[in-house]
Formats: sequence, C-alpha cells, structure tokens
Amino acid sequence: MTTKLTKPIAIIAGAGPGTGASIARRFAQTYPVVLLARRQSSLDPLVQGITESGGTALGIPADVTQPDAMEATMQQIAGQFGADVPVAAAIFNVASKFSRAPFLDSGAEFLDSLEATARGASNFSKAVLPFLLRAAAETPQARLPPTLIFTGATASLKGGSGLGSFAMSKFAVRALAQSLAREFGPRGVHVAHAIIDGIIATEQTKEYMKDKPDAKIHPDGIAESYWFLHSQPRSSFTHELDLRPYCETW
Amino acid sequence: MTTKLTKPIAIIAGAGPGTGASIARRFAQTYPVVLLARRQSSLDPLVQGITESGGTALGIPADVTQPDAMEATMQQIAGQFGADVPVAAAIFNVASKFSRAPFLDSGAEFLDSLEATARGASNFSKAVLPFLLRAAAETPQARLPPTLIFTGATASLKGGSGLGSFAMSKFAVRALAQSLAREFGPRGVHVAHAIIDGIIATEQTKEYMKDKPDAKIHPDGIAESYWFLHSQPRSSFTHELDLRPYCETW
Amino acid sequence: MTTKLTKPIAIIAGAGPGTGASIARRFAQTYPVVLLARRQSSLDPLVQGITESGGTALGIPADVTQPDAMEATMQQIAGQFGADVPVAAAIFNVASKFSRAPFLDSGAEFLDSLEATARGASNFSKAVLPFLLRAAAETPQARLPPTLIFTGATASLKGGSGLGSFAMSKFAVRALAQSLAREFGPRGVHVAHAIIDGIIATEQTKEYMKDKPDAKIHPDGIAESYWFLHSQPRSSFTHELDLRPYCETW
Amino acid sequence: MTTKLTKPIAIIAGAGPGTGASIARRFAQTYPVVLLARRQSSLDPLVQGITESGGTALGIPADVTQPDAMEATMQQIAGQFGADVPVAAAIFNVASKFSRAPFLDSGAEFLDSLEATARGASNFSKAVLPFLLRAAAETPQARLPPTLIFTGATASLKGGSGLGSFAMSKFAVRALAQSLAREFGPRGVHVAHAIIDGIIATEQTKEYMKDKPDAKIHPDGIAESYWFLHSQPRSSFTHELDLRPYCETW
Repeated sequence: MTTKLTKPIAIIAGAGPGTGASIARRFAQTYPVVLLARRQSSLDPLVQGITESGGTALGIPADVTQPDAMEATMQQIAGQFGADVPVAAAIFNVASKFSRAPFLDSGAEFLDSLEATARGASNFSKAVLPFLLRAAAETPQARLPPTLIFTGATASLKGGSGLGSFAMSKFAVRALAQSLAREFGPRGVHVAHAIIDGIIATEQTKEYMKDKPDAKIHPDGIAESYWFLHSQPRSSFTHELDLRPYCETW
Repeated sequence: MTTKLTKPIAIIAGAGPGTGASIARRFAQTYPVVLLARRQSSLDPLVQGITESGGTALGIPADVTQPDAMEATMQQIAGQFGADVPVAAAIFNVASKFSRAPFLDSGAEFLDSLEATARGASNFSKAVLPFLLRAAAETPQARLPPTLIFTGATASLKGGSGLGSFAMSKFAVRALAQSLAREFGPRGVHVAHAIIDGIIATEQTKEYMKDKPDAKIHPDGIAESYWFLHSQPRSSFTHELDLRPYCETW
Repeated sequence: MTTKLTKPIAIIAGAGPGTGASIARRFAQTYPVVLLARRQSSLDPLVQGITESGGTALGIPADVTQPDAMEATMQQIAGQFGADVPVAAAIFNVASKFSRAPFLDSGAEFLDSLEATARGASNFSKAVLPFLLRAAAETPQARLPPTLIFTGATASLKGGSGLGSFAMSKFAVRALAQSLAREFGPRGVHVAHAIIDGIIATEQTKEYMKDKPDAKIHPDGIAESYWFLHSQPRSSFTHELDLRPYCETW
Repeated sequence: MTTKLTKPIAIIAGAGPGTGASIARRFAQTYPVVLLARRQSSLDPLVQGITESGGTALGIPADVTQPDAMEATMQQIAGQFGADVPVAAAIFNVASKFSRAPFLDSGAEFLDSLEATARGASNFSKAVLPFLLRAAAETPQARLPPTLIFTGATASLKGGSGLGSFAMSKFAVRALAQSLAREFGPRGVHVAHAIIDGIIATEQTKEYMKDKPDAKIHPDGIAESYWFLHSQPRSSFTHELDLRPYCETW
C-alpha cells in the first residue's frame, strides 16, 4: 500500500540571482521548484532558464517577512500542485541585511534586520513544515528525506564590532534551526544549517579578489552542498556544516 | 587634573525579585542604584530594603522594550543624578519569556519574546553606553572599569525542541553582547555575558529539588559573579562565563 | 602542459569492518585504495570484496600509532603504485579506545588512548600530506581536490564523566584537523573533520535499538558524507560536519 | 560534630615567575601554599617573598609530567602538613610548550608538548583529587568549596597553522577539565578552566606593546580570577571563563 499521490516539490525562499538561483537550478533537476523572491523581475529569468532546461518552475513574488505573504503563497502553491502536495525540500535563503555601523549611530532600523529575518524564517518554517511532515509520512518512505535548510554566515557563530544587527539576526536563525531540528528530526524531517564563511562569487562581488581563482565561494558549490544535505538518509543527518574557500583565513 | 565630577551610579534593568534584586543589593553596596522594572510594586520593597541598609536606590517603572521608555528613563536619571552622571555598571537582566510549545501550535506570539528581548537589550545598550563611555573617559581612570552585563541562559548556546522562541531571543542577546564587547572593549567598556545554566532559587521554584541543598543557583551567587566581572581591571576582562549548580547535568 | 603522470590513489587508515570498510568500498569506486589495519585478517575479506567488484585494493597490516609503521607503509605503497603516486584522499578512521571508568580508578593506561590516537593521527598526516600536496600541485588541477579526513565523535566537542581519556584523544584530533586545515587549505588540500554523533550500526551494536529502524548511523552514510567532502571544489570546502540519526537526542 | 582536623592548603603546579607566582601569592593570603616547579631556583624567591609577607610556602622542585614525581611530591606534602591534610585549591598552571613550525618540518618532538601536558595534567589531577574530595567531605562544609583549576589558552578553542602541537595539548586539557567537572562536581569539587586569550605581561614580554597600557594581561588579574572561581559557592560554579585585555582582537 502506498499513500504517495502527488509528486513532491521543492520551495526556495530567497531565489534571487546568485546562491538562490544556483540552489533552484540544482533542485529543479529532480523536483518542480517554487521560487520566492520579492520581485517578479528577479524570478523571471530564473524560471525561464529552468524551463528551457526541461525543468518545472513557478515564480511567486512574495515578501516572506510579511505575516500573510507565506499563507497566500502556500495557497497559490496548493492551487498549482494540489492541496496535498508534499514538499521534499524547503530552503530559507533570504538574506539578512548586512550592515556595519557604529552601534550608537544606529537608529530604530538597528532591529530591522533581526525582525525581518526572524519573521521570515519563522513564517517560512511554519508554512512549509506541514508539507514536509506530509512527505515524511509517506509510504513507502521517500528515498530522500524531506529537508529544511537555512543559510547561515560567519556571523551565525561570532558577533563583530558594528555587526550587532546582522549577527543578532544570524544567531537567531541558528537558534531556530537547532530547535526545529530537535523537534522535527524525530518526525523524519531533516533540518540543517549551513554556515557560509566567505564572500560569495556574484555579479556584485566580481571585483573582489578577482586575480585569485576560487577565492570566493561559487554559488553552485553551495547548491551542491544543499543537495548533499537533502540526499542524506535519515540514519545520518548532518545538522550543520561550514563552507569556505580553501584560502580563507578563519 | 581630574575630570571626575559626579559620583557614578549603577543601573539594573529587570530588577524584579530574585536575581535582579540580588544584583541590585550587591551593586548598592558601592553605588547609588537605579532599578528598572515594569511595575512600581515590584520595585518598592527592593528600594526600601536598600535604603534601610544605608544605600541609595531609585526605582523607575519602565518597559525597556518600548522604544521611548529608555529615553524617558535616562532623562529621569539625569534629573536625579545630574546630566553628566557616569554609569559604572549597567546590567540587562530582563527575562526573555520562556515558553515550550510545539512550533506548529504557536501563533504570531512566537516572535514576541525575540522582539521584546532584542528591543529591550538594544534600547538599554543604546541608552547606557554613552554614560558608560563617559565613565571610561574619566581621569584618573576608575579603579573599576565601566561594565555592561547581559544575563544569558542555557538556551543562549543551544536550541531545543519547542524552545525556538526562547532560544532565538537568547542567541540574539549573545550576538549583541559579543558585538558590543568587540566595539566598546577597546574604548574601555567591559561588556560581558553570563550563561545561567540551571534553575534559579526563587519563590516560584522553591518546590523544585527542595530536598537537595544548593541544587538551584542562588541569586546572590549570580550577583557576586556580576560584581566580580565589574571588578576586573581592563587588562583582564572576562567576556563570558557560565554559572551552574555543582550537581547540574550538562 | 600537464604534470599528471600517475593515477591517484586513496588511503584509509582504520579500514576494519564497519565504517572503515564502507569508506574503502566507496572510494574504491573511483580510486585504487590502500587499506591499513592492524590485522591482515580483517583486511582480507575487504580486499577480496573490492577486487570482486572490479576495484583495486591493497591491504597492508600496519599499526599507524608506531612511529616507523607509517614510513614502511608509504614505501610499500610507493613500491606498488610508484614513488610519485599522488594521493587523492586520505582518511584517518582509526578508533580511539573508548573507555568509561572512574578517573581515580584508572592507572597509567589512562593516557594510552590519547597517546596512541595522537601518534596515529600525526604519523598518518605526516606520511600522507606530501602525497596530497603532490596531487594538489598537478596541472590541470584535479576535479576533486585532495582530501584528508579525520573521524571524530560526540566526545570531540564535549567531555563526560569517566570519559576523560577518550575525550582528550578526540579533542586532540580535532585540534590537529583544524590546524592542518588552516596550514594546508591554502595549499589546496582539503582537511575535514566529521563528528559522528550516535551509535554506528555494526555487527557489535546490532542488538542496540534493534526495533527502531535507522536509529543507528549506517556506515554507508558516513562513507557517502566523506565522499561528498572529497567532491567539494576548493571554492567551497567544508571543514566540519556532524552526522547523527534523525531520532538522536542532542 | 565536625570532622575538620587539619588546616587546608593550596597547591600550585607551574609556580614559576609570572602567572604562577601571582596565583601563589594570592592563595597564600588564605592558605599555606605548596609550589611546584621544575627548578628550585625559580621557587626560592617566591617562597621567600610569601614568607616575608607573613604567609606559609613550601617549594618542591618537581616535574609533574613524570609519572612518579607527583606521588613523591604528595608524600612530601603529607610529611609536612599531615597525611590527612585537605586541599582547598589545586591549580594546574604548567605551560604547554608553544611552538609554531610548519607541520612537515616537525619531527617526533611534535608530540612532546601534548604528551608532557597530558601526563602532567592527569598526574596532577590524580594526585590532588583525593585531597580535594577530603576537603569536600568535611563537616561543616568549607565556606570555599575545594577547587581544581586548569590554565588554558586561545588555542584551547581554536587550532592554527603551525600550531597543531600546542593546540592538541590545550584541547586535551580542556577535555580533561570538562570530564573532571562532570565527574567531581556532583561530589563537591569545583573544576574550572580559564582561557587566557592574550599576551601575559611578564619579564619576557615586556617589549611587546610597551606603549599601550594594559594591553597585556597582568598576572595578578589572572590570580584574582582564579580566587574568584575558588570563592564561588557550590550553588553557582563557573566552569569556564575567558580573560583578555580590553583592546585584544578576537
């Protein structure tokens, strides 16, 4: 007897250019992917690229830090893929706003990053976990256990002068990831946290260390690591791993 | 030449019964203390006790998680002790709301603890740091460097099933403490974070392990540790220490 | 111009049954593998199995904790595969002796585990690093950067009552892994440390939690994770990851 | 009824000039102190200074890394202070040999630091713990719980390029300290670990940052912190604290 009715999907929040796009393309090799980003315009080329490669992608402009956005988004997803669609993988890759400023010069916006990130991470988790649990409950068990991954940073582990706002948001996400791993791991959902410790190679960073090959983290390397996390059987889940270029000082 | 004009004070936020009261009494042995708590009623007996012991205490009912509360509070303090009063020690001992609940059963209140704690810790830090820096700039240097201490918990280091809300708030405070230590340490302000890893002996917990002496952390032990942190010369600051009963499993 | 002359190999120390055997079989899918273990008898079935699957395996009985053993072993390897053979992957999977005993009941043997493990890990690293550096220097660069992996445990991060001997050895290996990562990473060698946090499913542990599927870590899961580490491009090396069953308490 | 018969003493291993001497002087304000160091000549001025200040000090030249040395030392102590003398505080302050060298240039001496440190820390702990347990068992309970403190360093938490030997020894001591804390804490012995993160101000380092006041850790600051640890009641033991100058980058 099987309960599997609907083909599972993957959802990537923060599917803008760079890391998000690489993750989306990687998971689209196996699953229909739902891509969330603030602006439709940053989703369009990605959806088009995935479609042209033979994949299925649905781009939904959504601000996951808004309480209602995730709910509306999940309804849209259900409308497209079925109300009982299982989620095989959900990736929270929404960037926390990085700012470095003297603490006493900062105003009320000091907490913006923390509040947006915390709302985003918790809204997203609450929206996708019932769908991940559904995938975990399927019979026969999925070969690839349902997976919820959070993108962290150097500042997930260490505060810094002028970095309080950013570090608070990244520490908080790590706390959430650990707590969800301990709550939902025993129910078959793999919750993981990746610490990206280095500059990511994107259009914005192309001038940085341009003469040193591979000195920046290639987004595809992050995507492969996320896929690896997803591929782990439930007898050996990795909760946390770090990622940094070979030449990074740490 | 000396610039020292005004006798320095200590400010304790979260000066309710229990830990806050013990800290207040300890610092009142040396400084006039300003005590902040939500309710005047929880301040009155403490202020009275300190006064009767020959100390000076000013209780100000204030919700430090409200943006404007700290500013009004600091004006009240300036009115009482002088606009140029240096702060020798500031303690952020406001409890984060502890709750243990299944993540998917939680509603919007899931983020309440994080947001209140983060606002409180950052409001308080912004309000007191200029006064701490003033103390750091005095000539001759104070024997006891100005100190800003945050109260942490087991959940500052480790998330837990159903504890996401609490852990997020405690991780975030730790990130802030680390960031402020790195920014203001070089300017002479000692920023520290204490991890309270165990049940604190209070009126509320008196039934817990009542037959095992010293199995709960006595608030006076926390207060002495905070005073110790304040007593460290700037050549050897402790940023983080843990505190737990001898019989605690960890 | 290429300098690649000889087909690279993989070396696994601690290639006994269980984790070591799984790692050996995984890397034998790509490389000739050299297997080190104390007893020839524990190597024979593994070598035979790999050979029957179309792989190449050389079993060398060696006690890597003995100063001269690794040198003799490397000469034997050079004799078989060429003095200039590059090493693509070297895995230190030698078990530290686990013992749980009251500290004051222990005798001189208390340090045996630490000394054997430290000697083994450092002997092995010194022997293989020149061969790993050779692989790193090849032109064109290998698609899979040369990799040195150490097997850690729960006790790599946390001591325990009666576990001092074991924890000292595992902490020390972690210190070595971190130090070598920082020294040899910039030279192109990927040094990683895996924290195995749970009971491994082996012949010896088959009765443990036998009724709960996947409650023990399957050795093949560890092997796949090690292969994943080896597969990472140098722009995104993972230094440390943990591995535990979905239902493990941590 | 009391079982207290003999005045308790303190034992400091690694009581050379600098930190060890400061610790010795601090504990000598309350206890007769036994000072261990390799050379009598480095003990003599310290013993003399303590005596002149009205304290009691016994200097015993001993290499605690030698298996038999600690036993002979304890017999000498028993001869002087009584076979049933309780130990109120025992400090392991023996320096691990710091060396920074390319890993592949190092020879067999690579493990010297680890082996000497591990032997020293475990020999010392085994020798003093029965005397600390005796102090813990006294009735009425000592106001200051018996305390065993280990001196750690930056490298207790983090390896470094070329620092493998040193880091292995410091990680191992931290593992021992954690394990002993978990085993002997519930029996009333306070086991603590101090992470000294900075340059200590000694004769050897006097040229380093000489123009920046307080940029090095003053040994007396370490001594005061150790005394603070000793002063903690058993309801609130600190297991680990860090110590660094206010201007240190970390």
